[in-house]
Amino acid sequence: MPELSPDQFSLVYNMFSLTIAAMFGTFVFFVLAKENIAVKYRPAIVVSGLVVLIAGYHYFRIFQSWDEAYTIGENGMYVATGVPFNDAYRYVDWLLTVPLLLVELIVVLALPREKSMDLLGRLVIASVLMIALGYPGEVSDSGSTQAIFFVLSFIPFVYILRTLWKELAVEIEHETGRVKELVEQTRMVLLVTWMFYPIAYLFNIAGGTADAEIGIQVGYTIADIAAKCGYGVMVYFIAREKTLIDSAPASAKAAGAKA
Amino acid sequence: MPELSPDQFSLVYNMFSLTIAAMFGTFVFFVLAKENIAVKYRPAIVVSGLVVLIAGYHYFRIFQSWDEAYTIGENGMYVATGVPFNDAYRYVDWLLTVPLLLVELIVVLALPREKSMDLLGRLVIASVLMIALGYPGEVSDSGSTQAIFFVLSFIPFVYILRTLWKELAVEIEHETGRVKELVEQTRMVLLVTWMFYPIAYLFNIAGGTADAEIGIQVGYTIADIAAKCGYGVMVYFIAREKTLIDSAPASAKAAGAKA
Repeated sequence: MPELSPDQFSLVYNMFSLTIAAMFGTFVFFVLAKENIAVKYRPAIVVSGLVVLIAGYHYFRIFQSWDEAYTIGENGMYVATGVPFNDAYRYVDWLLTVPLLLVELIVVLALPREKSMDLLGRLVIASVLMIALGYPGEVSDSGSTQAIFFVLSFIPFVYILRTLWKELAVEIEHETGRVKELVEQTRMVLLVTWMFYPIAYLFNIAGGTADAEIGIQVGYTIADIAAKCGYGVMVYFIAREKTLIDSAPASAKAAGAKA
Repeated sequence: MPELSPDQFSLVYNMFSLTIAAMFGTFVFFVLAKENIAVKYRPAIVVSGLVVLIAGYHYFRIFQSWDEAYTIGENGMYVATGVPFNDAYRYVDWLLTVPLLLVELIVVLALPREKSMDLLGRLVIASVLMIALGYPGEVSDSGSTQAIFFVLSFIPFVYILRTLWKELAVEIEHETGRVKELVEQTRMVLLVTWMFYPIAYLFNIAGGTADAEIGIQVGYTIADIAAKCGYGVMVYFIAREKTLIDSAPASAKAAGAKA
């Protein structure tokens, strides 16, 4: 672990604390707001809740691990205590939450069962490959190992995004009005937030400097808040809008379609 | 406790943390998703929730015990601190959760009361015998003691699996469509996940090497996630499907039966 200035240490420390609050806060939002959603779309909200709950737990552990990994040295800088900072919490978190994020989206799209199961099966396998292939590069000190696993992990990453992009394009065509807009926005949120992950990973390849370490930690943290809380709330809005349309009389639905 | 490399120590450490997240996540899922299940099958979901809650508590303790049992030695390897790793948490957990897992399945099968009570009585006694006879072998250092208790514990183990397999075969014959498929899949999940336990136990007999220790801990952990979270979610899907069938009009039921 590189030596950090007090400001650098505190930036990461406070970002982790912010993330704990954001994740558990969003969890409670989903629990309380679930009743506004039609029964049909509720599983999407339940799964969104699980994602932020599990991530909140992991950020709690990450926060503690960061705190234990550093101490104030004689020069007033933060130096490594020798207790390793446990990077693996992120990967364990992703192993559980990325498949759930995929479920979340597919439930709210309300595709026919066979189509959903097939799509989900392919995407979950790709997500496990992506995470499992990313980890050896994350923990390696060798630049070439990092680069190889970056490329290997990037293949399923692109596959997942490309598949979701295409599926969402089909959905966008079928929808109208406010739901169409929301699905378009969710697709952009998905693309933009997911791009943070490979960027944060590249900071790792850039080497063990203080700036690289801050880049990794802040990058992943922003990505996790956006991809879990932000994306989950978008899915909630889609489910809410679909609930309103489903419960409206037929005449209102036709008007909604024209709007 | 054998000396472990940092990767070996971390693998077990991170598997335990993952299990805590998986158990408590699944608990919250059952609590939030219970409302989708007809009142008749809800006890199965409540019991599934208790199983993963109790297991989550025990994995929290196991995680702490593992962390306290090891420290980083001068050679950079993880060495025993002298604080014993408490194996008994697993057995205490099983003593509570295995009877509940049996209840879970029997409730969702919705057998006649007398039949359920008789079946449950026999299976719970067998499960207590299985766990009580397994423990002396788990904590013994003598190969012959380990082997004897393995065999003694294996008898009720086989009895439970054989009884459930036969009961589920009867259920499969009576069901149709999606429920039939799900019960068939659950039966396979049950068989495959339970096989992990004797395999992990055999690592114990293989001796106190680092590889054996990793095999035991990772083996039991995978088994517990599959047998508690995985199996519980399968039971949830069966209950969900039965709820949909029970609430459908009679014509739809006939169509479902043909499908």
